[in-house]
Amino acid sequence: MYITFDFQSDVPLYLQLRNQVVIAISKGVLKPGDHLPTVRALSDESGVNAMTISKAYQLMKQEGYISTERRGGAVVSAGDKEIKVSKDTVNRLDLCISELRLSGMGEEQIVDLCRRLYREEE
Amino acid sequence: MYITFDFQSDVPLYLQLRNQVVIAISKGVLKPGDHLPTVRALSDESGVNAMTISKAYQLMKQEGYISTERRGGAVVSAGDKEIKVSKDTVNRLDLCISELRLSGMGEEQIVDLCRRLYREEE
Repeated sequence: MYITFDFQSDVPLYLQLRNQVVIAISKGVLKPGDHLPTVRALSDESGVNAMTISKAYQLMKQEGYISTERRGGAVVSAGDKEIKVSKDTVNRLDLCISELRLSGMGEEQIVDLCRRLYREEE
Repeated sequence: MYITFDFQSDVPLYLQLRNQVVIAISKGVLKPGDHLPTVRALSDESGVNAMTISKAYQLMKQEGYISTERRGGAVVSAGDKEIKVSKDTVNRLDLCISELRLSGMGEEQIVDLCRRLYREEE
């Protein structure tokens, strides 16, 4: 997979990385057992500080999405670990739905969009 | 409505304010014609810089959620202005759904959660 960083964004770089990996796992672009680049390799390639990359890897490990290896490597988890739904996820979902609602979308339109995103594979 | 700021959060303060107002409008806590506190008043009350509050108000005005008045006041829009669904909203929704999916929730569970959030009034 190809990671991109938006240096103009208000989203911190470590979260940009984490979010792209989470979506890639969900869409099947990254599969259980797949290796992520090492911290060093991704840092060299992207120009993003190694501490920032490492912070994203530590967060994803803590959340259960990946396991980390020696020398900065990381592997996508098998999906057998329990990943908890955080209150933060539900709050962010609530915000998205509020934005869609205020843009004039009805309940069924929003549900259709959610179903499409759920089923989507990249 | 009561605005809270989390100074530990990675979410910029102006976005925290904007997000709370958007959800409050969607849930009917804030209704068309309701006044928001002036920039000055909210700044004094919260300890957040007036420039930050003003940035949130300008963004919400641009997005069509509020109209601004003289002297830093603002009023919730009537809902007759077109608010566009941004690609950013859909991307954030995609991330939330990916997180829920990877936590083991199925399509129908996610749809049920979305319907509940859509209908929820505070």
